[in-house]
Amino acid sequence: MTIRALAFDTFGTLVDWRGSILAELDGLGARRGLVADWPRFLADWKSCYREGMDKVNAGAWPWTTVEAIYHRRLVELLATYRIGSMEEAEVDHLNHVWWRLRPWPDVVVGLGRLKTHYVLSPLSNASFAGMVHLGKFADLPWDCVITAENARCYKPRPEVYRTAIELLGLPAGEIMMVAAHNYDLCAARAQGMRTAFIPRPTEYGPCQATDLAPEADWDIVATDVEDLARVLGA
Amino acid sequence: MTIRALAFDTFGTLVDWRGSILAELDGLGARRGLVADWPRFLADWKSCYREGMDKVNAGAWPWTTVEAIYHRRLVELLATYRIGSMEEAEVDHLNHVWWRLRPWPDVVVGLGRLKTHYVLSPLSNASFAGMVHLGKFADLPWDCVITAENARCYKPRPEVYRTAIELLGLPAGEIMMVAAHNYDLCAARAQGMRTAFIPRPTEYGPCQATDLAPEADWDIVATDVEDLARVLGA
Repeated sequence: MTIRALAFDTFGTLVDWRGSILAELDGLGARRGLVADWPRFLADWKSCYREGMDKVNAGAWPWTTVEAIYHRRLVELLATYRIGSMEEAEVDHLNHVWWRLRPWPDVVVGLGRLKTHYVLSPLSNASFAGMVHLGKFADLPWDCVITAENARCYKPRPEVYRTAIELLGLPAGEIMMVAAHNYDLCAARAQGMRTAFIPRPTEYGPCQATDLAPEADWDIVATDVEDLARVLGA
Repeated sequence: MTIRALAFDTFGTLVDWRGSILAELDGLGARRGLVADWPRFLADWKSCYREGMDKVNAGAWPWTTVEAIYHRRLVELLATYRIGSMEEAEVDHLNHVWWRLRPWPDVVVGLGRLKTHYVLSPLSNASFAGMVHLGKFADLPWDCVITAENARCYKPRPEVYRTAIELLGLPAGEIMMVAAHNYDLCAARAQGMRTAFIPRPTEYGPCQATDLAPEADWDIVATDVEDLARVLGA
């Protein structure tokens, strides 16, 4: 197995979106004297993500970035949860919380080790600009950025993986998809990519029921990104 | 003038392709006992670049990476210059010399300073993979990589600049094109981008006749990348 590039799922796999956003929502609530069930608010917000992407993939919507998908739902939720009037700039700022997410503790050190041996790219359903900003915010040492926006459709559509393979200019088998989600690895393997599973059992909070364990014989199962670096000799 | 991202031309502007490749050709010659007019060989090689790109832009050729353009010419030149038989792997390695170019002395420090204030991307006619490899080789601290390959046509076609503007997700006027070539800045300005000129008067060797000075009122004229960082307050 010769690996030259690693393509990382990002939300959940590298950054703790739930913990980061709950902290920001708590802070917002405290500053403005708002009381709300923030975990439920966030679950409602996040649930528009797959729904919107599926509409793009089915051709029911034209290409729409996840920011636009999240923005639409956020405006609805602010009304549903009766969260007092926010100016447009404040709503935009809150919507961009998806660009201000903390990496899991193993990520920056692990990627730093991997970077000396491999080409590192995200392969995320984020917008290109969102992934660039998140990379700067979270100190993710990318060699390049590739997202669903480069293919103008969303994972797990094969075009997304094929776009990454083509842009990286390598045989598919020399690129390893790294993800905390089995569906993503399944779709990557179907395009000939190598696969590494890193469980993130609290990505969705304490009651997470999915992706707690590998569901196929992925090439590597690692406990975190530092462990992946160890297994890959970096 | 609010600038959030800088898009850099790379060959000539950031890396000394001529000096780097002549050094490698000299080394090859010494190792294999070959005598050739290497500066002329390189000028002949480089001359296929614009020619090939223009064919792609005119639709006469399908999308073709610069590696493929250079490879075709290299094989011809090795015959013309009667350079003894080289194995395919050796020819490939030599062709990839375009991924092993030294940055000008001001570049790594200057980009490091700019990176703390701005999003940094190449906007080059290189292939995507080529630019990723060159970035790793030359320690160019990119936040992302955007090249002509993302638009599947070459600068100065407007699609290349528009692709960068769209991917960066910013108003064109908040992105500054940085180049040692006036034609590149002219095309970037036509798409609403800001412009910075950095002369590289020996890019083509001691007798360079073009791009010795700015040919329009570019937003910034800087002596090198460190000077650009100074002007931009980074």
